[in-house]
Amino acid sequence: MSSRLLDKIDSPSDLKGLTRKELNQLANEIRDTIISVITERGGHLASNLGVVELTLALHRVFDSPKDRLVWDTTNQMYSHKLVTGRRDEFQDIRLAGGISGFGEPSESPHDTLCAGHAGTGLSIALGIAQSLSTRGQDAWTVAVVGDGAMTSGSSFEALNNIVHLNPDRLIVVLNDNGMSISENIGFLTNWRKRVITHPEYRAMIGRMRSLSKRVPTGDAIYRLVKRFNDSLDTFILPTMFWNELGFQYLGPVAGHDLRQLEMTLQQAKLATGQVPIVHVVTHKGHGYEPAEDDPVKFHQPSSPLGAGSGAPTYSKVFADTISRLMAEDDTVVGISAAMLEGTGLEDVRQQFPGRVFDVGIAEQHAVSMAAGMASTGAKPFVSIYSTFLQRAFDQLVHDVCLQSLPVTIIADRAGIVGEDGKTHHGFLDLSYLRCLPNAVVAAPMDENDLQHLVYTAYKYPGPFAIRIPRGAATGCVMDADVKELPIGRGSVIREGSDVVIFGLGKTATAAKEAADLLAEYGLACGVVNPIYVKPLDVNLLLDSSRSAGRIVTVEENVLAGGFGSAVLETLSEAGMEDVPVLRIGMPDSLVEHGTAADQRRRLQLDAEGIAAQILQAFFPDRVAVSAASD
Amino acid sequence: MSSRLLDKIDSPSDLKGLTRKELNQLANEIRDTIISVITERGGHLASNLGVVELTLALHRVFDSPKDRLVWDTTNQMYSHKLVTGRRDEFQDIRLAGGISGFGEPSESPHDTLCAGHAGTGLSIALGIAQSLSTRGQDAWTVAVVGDGAMTSGSSFEALNNIVHLNPDRLIVVLNDNGMSISENIGFLTNWRKRVITHPEYRAMIGRMRSLSKRVPTGDAIYRLVKRFNDSLDTFILPTMFWNELGFQYLGPVAGHDLRQLEMTLQQAKLATGQVPIVHVVTHKGHGYEPAEDDPVKFHQPSSPLGAGSGAPTYSKVFADTISRLMAEDDTVVGISAAMLEGTGLEDVRQQFPGRVFDVGIAEQHAVSMAAGMASTGAKPFVSIYSTFLQRAFDQLVHDVCLQSLPVTIIADRAGIVGEDGKTHHGFLDLSYLRCLPNAVVAAPMDENDLQHLVYTAYKYPGPFAIRIPRGAATGCVMDADVKELPIGRGSVIREGSDVVIFGLGKTATAAKEAADLLAEYGLACGVVNPIYVKPLDVNLLLDSSRSAGRIVTVEENVLAGGFGSAVLETLSEAGMEDVPVLRIGMPDSLVEHGTAADQRRRLQLDAEGIAAQILQAFFPDRVAVSAASD
Repeated sequence: MSSRLLDKIDSPSDLKGLTRKELNQLANEIRDTIISVITERGGHLASNLGVVELTLALHRVFDSPKDRLVWDTTNQMYSHKLVTGRRDEFQDIRLAGGISGFGEPSESPHDTLCAGHAGTGLSIALGIAQSLSTRGQDAWTVAVVGDGAMTSGSSFEALNNIVHLNPDRLIVVLNDNGMSISENIGFLTNWRKRVITHPEYRAMIGRMRSLSKRVPTGDAIYRLVKRFNDSLDTFILPTMFWNELGFQYLGPVAGHDLRQLEMTLQQAKLATGQVPIVHVVTHKGHGYEPAEDDPVKFHQPSSPLGAGSGAPTYSKVFADTISRLMAEDDTVVGISAAMLEGTGLEDVRQQFPGRVFDVGIAEQHAVSMAAGMASTGAKPFVSIYSTFLQRAFDQLVHDVCLQSLPVTIIADRAGIVGEDGKTHHGFLDLSYLRCLPNAVVAAPMDENDLQHLVYTAYKYPGPFAIRIPRGAATGCVMDADVKELPIGRGSVIREGSDVVIFGLGKTATAAKEAADLLAEYGLACGVVNPIYVKPLDVNLLLDSSRSAGRIVTVEENVLAGGFGSAVLETLSEAGMEDVPVLRIGMPDSLVEHGTAADQRRRLQLDAEGIAAQILQAFFPDRVAVSAASD
Repeated sequence: MSSRLLDKIDSPSDLKGLTRKELNQLANEIRDTIISVITERGGHLASNLGVVELTLALHRVFDSPKDRLVWDTTNQMYSHKLVTGRRDEFQDIRLAGGISGFGEPSESPHDTLCAGHAGTGLSIALGIAQSLSTRGQDAWTVAVVGDGAMTSGSSFEALNNIVHLNPDRLIVVLNDNGMSISENIGFLTNWRKRVITHPEYRAMIGRMRSLSKRVPTGDAIYRLVKRFNDSLDTFILPTMFWNELGFQYLGPVAGHDLRQLEMTLQQAKLATGQVPIVHVVTHKGHGYEPAEDDPVKFHQPSSPLGAGSGAPTYSKVFADTISRLMAEDDTVVGISAAMLEGTGLEDVRQQFPGRVFDVGIAEQHAVSMAAGMASTGAKPFVSIYSTFLQRAFDQLVHDVCLQSLPVTIIADRAGIVGEDGKTHHGFLDLSYLRCLPNAVVAAPMDENDLQHLVYTAYKYPGPFAIRIPRGAATGCVMDADVKELPIGRGSVIREGSDVVIFGLGKTATAAKEAADLLAEYGLACGVVNPIYVKPLDVNLLLDSSRSAGRIVTVEENVLAGGFGSAVLETLSEAGMEDVPVLRIGMPDSLVEHGTAADQRRRLQLDAEGIAAQILQAFFPDRVAVSAASD
């Protein structure tokens, strides 16, 4: 029989009877579990180690699922999952069929919502609190917001509206670990530094602790915390910042001290007048030395399951290429939004410190700022993950394409992303980029294409978007010199007269393999690397259509409005609508987590799946022949 | 010969030699010109009357176009246009071929950028300032930001990044008229009230004025303003808000006092250390009594050119319908983003005060808050203009569709909008909504459809988007009772076997008229009201394709990924790709301002244009016959 306390925790109510000592033991067990599973499996390690005590405190002070805990983002919910009945499932987190690495209402009533994009929690929590209070329900809504999420404009819009509506029973917990994914940006950081490093701070915390040991619960604690805060207000100007905004500021609270956390959350429940904001100072990676030392690296350690071929990632090839351009042209700049590491731009910043900008989780600003820069003659490259680029859609339309400014967008992690699942796939960018006037939209089939496309974009005097996949590139030979790839021109990578497969971007490789498989059925499949989605290579498409009479399109994007749709539009406009087109892509539904390879297999986006779909659509008799000869 | 001073102002440099008295006269002339043109022509009246003196002061203190003035939004630029060489063109503002109602770099080097969406100016100005300073240029960049724009998350992201990068020669002017389009929301308002209504404020302004009369220019003014601000800091706590954020706060400045404005802008140029923010208090509609009394109405008085048929607007029909639902079901709520008047929700708020939410210019928050509300069982209807809904694209994807929550989106002003031109057309929503998993997307052909669609959305348990056009509906007879329109079912509104026109939404009416015109050529045109774009009525499409052998789609959206594209996809999937489809819609380019009727005629989206395109595509011989018989 297990001696682990964790094995006796089946729901949050089991936490309420534990002693202080047992809680500390439980926190250690949770931390050990997370470390052992995530270092093996991959996932968000440092952020989850930072909120173990906070999670326990929240579940002891509030009554989930009646009270709603809204995490922003939900990648901090591992401890929460462990104490809400998913202890045994935890080892399969992020695997196909296992529990999600994010909140997931279908897993548990304790998961309020699923959210993988930062900056949504305050809005959602306000919506919940407002709705519940209108109906006279006495449940609490608690938004737990990471400091990184606070830099997003959507959080600000929500803060502003929270002050305006001032609903009852809403509490904001600012989980301040001093960094977002890479580092905190701007005035929240300044404010924080002034709070945390103030000479009075440590004394204050010390006094708080010693006082708190002498009182039990209830009104006495209320008075104590009030006194603490009053003196904080007197001594530390920056706390007035939040009060000035219209919140009731409580803090700073030592985020790994369970007693202090619970006491402050209790105090927040007693607050009247203004929505309380509880400022909790946590340490990312707390309790695990490698993660504490390098929380950026341990934000999300790579899963060994996704280990690559030794080829560079697409992100790295992009970064290396703009480094080369930057060395020659000082108008070239790089911009990202709290993704310098992931996009490869961190290395570029080290080479060109004043010319790479990390704006924080603020995609909208990243794109508009690039537009401003481009209007002065600069050549900005903005690299943002495809899924987060959705945040900047209006800025792409209004600030870049309407003005036809030479801003290059790198939509990184486009297509299937694997374990992060449905909130993170870049499954829409072809649809939302292709409709933009003045935009060029391209996708390289390999890293050699990519370096040339980056150079082509650099030379092009208007908006240019390049979508690149997550992970390792193909390992192909790279040309020594970069060159322009003629805009709107694709290339034939395999000849064949029975059918021509247009495999966009990464899928060109799978299309080539599919063509090999289909050769075994006696079929001569051509394969085209389209390179450009907009403008499409009309001549190549029409020639292929005439010669083969059948076209297949493959893309890692939904089919509605995607690349295949562009092919249909082009054939229709050319009066060649009678050419049958099989469009292969991502489904009009959500793609759950698992490895990217699993996902591609399930969706028939790997070579076998592509070949099978082509056989079924165009050559059903060959399937029968082959089956018979087996 | 004109005695108007304005007639001698050909460029901003002509302002610099004017006396104080002449400047006051010029301000009056500008005001008279704006009032006389805009009350006749339509346009943004109140906001422009509010910034006459500010514009003159900016052009006297700065040196445009070397110095960059970035207006947020650019609908406040009428005075600027009048003093930058467009005096004579002003009478044709917003007309086809005339100057734009917004900034327009192609009109003048003094127009830095074109921007019709609020909240982009700070980002763009930071981009410009950073870029110029990297290259060692000594030009100033001045962002003039309306207080409404300040509620947008994109402004916050920019403020945050401005503090971080802290570029030289960037000045922020907060043009505070106490309201955005309808009213200010949240903590900026609270902060402002505390500044403006503080008992010391009037005394301060008085002292400022009397002191300022006694000193000439230069250092003395510097010391004076510094002293003024020091005392302000001492007396008025809220000014610390901006200092706390990391800006150097200057103000409040009386926004119609030219001397005070110029003095403070000069002071801003001398600021060191932190980016100065100049808080200018203006009065919307200043100098024109009807506009001062009702600035919401006079924000953008309707153009008489666009006067309707007496039929209700689509917005009003939406609002009336949700009023009916709200009377019966208290879970129904309405949300908009500084567009309560325009969306018809203001009347609904008066009936149901606690259940209609105006979140300010904060579309992202509006949609996420609705998701939070829906997660508790509420039925939120979010009405936002199609062009501004682009701001909430990620929230639609991530917070609504990924969770499949029952949020209804009304994409108002979808399609062609007329005089506001390229920044305001709702020309992309079909493309960016149709790609979303779990979404239903619909467009009513008339107001009767609309009321039923609103009811259908109310009954539907998932995300539902309804796009409605700007302006008056058809004046059709309305059913007394609302009913559900079966999802994915269109209706035949005219039978015909030569070709079937699928006229989406408003275009169904033009399609009917086109069918009448084509009857004169001996053609029997069927017309379908598709109602649903997603899911499409597959059976109706296939039946029509079989019977007529030719399909025409009409939509007010770009063709890439739009409704016609959905028709191609459906035919391709059904193996009926050989049916020729003529897709009629908005071009893959920008549609400049003019009346909506002009724009539709130019784009061949009216009945004549649709008929002509059909003849040309499918029946070119009939054109010849008809031409010969003329």
